[in-house]
Amino acid sequence: MIDVATLVEQARQGRPRAVARLISLVENAAPELREVMAALAPYTGRAYTVGLTGSPGVGKSTSTSALVSAYRRLGKRVGVLAVDPSSPFSGGALLGDRVRMQDHATDPEVFIRSMATRGHLGGLSWAAPQALRVLDGAGCDVILVETVGVGQSEVEIAAQADTTVVLLAPGMGDGIQAAKAGILEIGDVFVVNKADRDGADATARELNHMLGLGEARDAGDWRPPIVKTVAARGEGLDEVVEALEKHRAWLEEHGELATRRRRRAADEVEAIALAALRARIGDLHGDRHLANLAERVVAGELDPYRAADELVAGLTRG
Amino acid sequence: MIDVATLVEQARQGRPRAVARLISLVENAAPELREVMAALAPYTGRAYTVGLTGSPGVGKSTSTSALVSAYRRLGKRVGVLAVDPSSPFSGGALLGDRVRMQDHATDPEVFIRSMATRGHLGGLSWAAPQALRVLDGAGCDVILVETVGVGQSEVEIAAQADTTVVLLAPGMGDGIQAAKAGILEIGDVFVVNKADRDGADATARELNHMLGLGEARDAGDWRPPIVKTVAARGEGLDEVVEALEKHRAWLEEHGELATRRRRRAADEVEAIALAALRARIGDLHGDRHLANLAERVVAGELDPYRAADELVAGLTRG
Repeated sequence: MIDVATLVEQARQGRPRAVARLISLVENAAPELREVMAALAPYTGRAYTVGLTGSPGVGKSTSTSALVSAYRRLGKRVGVLAVDPSSPFSGGALLGDRVRMQDHATDPEVFIRSMATRGHLGGLSWAAPQALRVLDGAGCDVILVETVGVGQSEVEIAAQADTTVVLLAPGMGDGIQAAKAGILEIGDVFVVNKADRDGADATARELNHMLGLGEARDAGDWRPPIVKTVAARGEGLDEVVEALEKHRAWLEEHGELATRRRRRAADEVEAIALAALRARIGDLHGDRHLANLAERVVAGELDPYRAADELVAGLTRG
Repeated sequence: MIDVATLVEQARQGRPRAVARLISLVENAAPELREVMAALAPYTGRAYTVGLTGSPGVGKSTSTSALVSAYRRLGKRVGVLAVDPSSPFSGGALLGDRVRMQDHATDPEVFIRSMATRGHLGGLSWAAPQALRVLDGAGCDVILVETVGVGQSEVEIAAQADTTVVLLAPGMGDGIQAAKAGILEIGDVFVVNKADRDGADATARELNHMLGLGEARDAGDWRPPIVKTVAARGEGLDEVVEALEKHRAWLEEHGELATRRRRRAADEVEAIALAALRARIGDLHGDRHLANLAERVVAGELDPYRAADELVAGLTRG
């Protein structure tokens, strides 16, 4: 038996083990989650969430770690959620880079968790937001959400943050890669890391061009800044924090923060509702009803749509 | 207006344009699909489906093309479905390799279609099976389903076939890669392509070892054969066909073919049912009800699970 009330209370006090256990409950889609989320609800909504994404090799993990340091210098409590949606068969996130985070391992004001969402259908959509709720409830001022890889799932997760940072590095053909994965559209702040290398200026220029930053815009529009960093040496991170704070102020001023959060909550609620319906359908698996329907489909007596109608009818009657 | 009856009739006669249009309807999740599937149902269930998967660089596309040739020598009508589930933002499948298929472009007994499933949630699960139904209804004896890349979605699609072929090539560290992606478990037939290169024997041995083929098994168990090919020169493909036919015979003998097809149909029906429920939820988007729920969640007045309960209640009442 898990004592949810005690666990939530300990997490609110910032006890790392309690926070870790709650995120494990999210990761395992534990039945206690309902109770956890109900208990946390009144204490959420304070944290500012920042999504970080970019191709492998741009220094995402190093940048995240350096950004944690920058926020710690400002006295902020920081949460880091490293999400690996592309680990289909592993029991946990494969994050070799997590070693970088060791710098912060003994800091009681930093919470670091990696999470494999294991490609559960619908899992991505609700798991990351709920892990964020836990870190939010634990009093984090800022939560950094780092995704591994650059598939669509990664992009979606990063885009769910209040502010999304897209990382690039010189000479990786990143421009094209980024455009392909659609990550340019989601960037609120761009970081060209490894700026001490050849080609950093060219990358920034190319990016500037691709973003059409030279073009005329409405006065109220947000112009994504491009910040150069050398994360491994901690250079430029204060400028990143500054850019993030500016974006946050812009979001608040334009009512965008509330809009983004409502949209995110709507997506989350929808995903949970869908998971619940899936579970009901899943309960029918092994059930004679679905087996019969499948048999008739195989025999060509029934098309899959009419079979699905019958399945849904049985479900919504129940 | 699409005249579904005429289109289906033309597809049944093996008219390539009609087949192509029907698969486009699947790809676009067109509303006419219901009618298409209803019209096709009595004519499906004949085709033998073969899934092909493997890491990029093993020569999947070349092997598929060579396998088409091998089946054509036997006088079979062949369908090829190249599925690209990882193209999130493209309007169509990005298959540069499709050029290889040009050999068969003028053969009226070969149907080749690429399909981007665009990462629609649940899209993967129903789109590929329905495209298979179209090719099946068009009288294909064999349908080869080739997936691009080796993510979980690719593995799932390949595993949905009657027989699944896993391709490897020498010296690519494939063993570990394959084990990581979980594709060893799904292989009914293994092909070591590029067998004229150094290390082909070592790859086959390593594979043999990883599959535990040396170990004792029940007499009735299927022992996945390992076939060596040089697809670019068309070598070894008749042996692949032979291995496939043996597996098919084994499936039929052990009642496994029917079992696999029923399972596949159940998954498909479930996916369509889920998509229908999703659509109903989607209709609620922009709806005041979901917006209100989201607002209360953001305000911390309601937790996302209770909000989801309310959403589901509204849905199943409707």
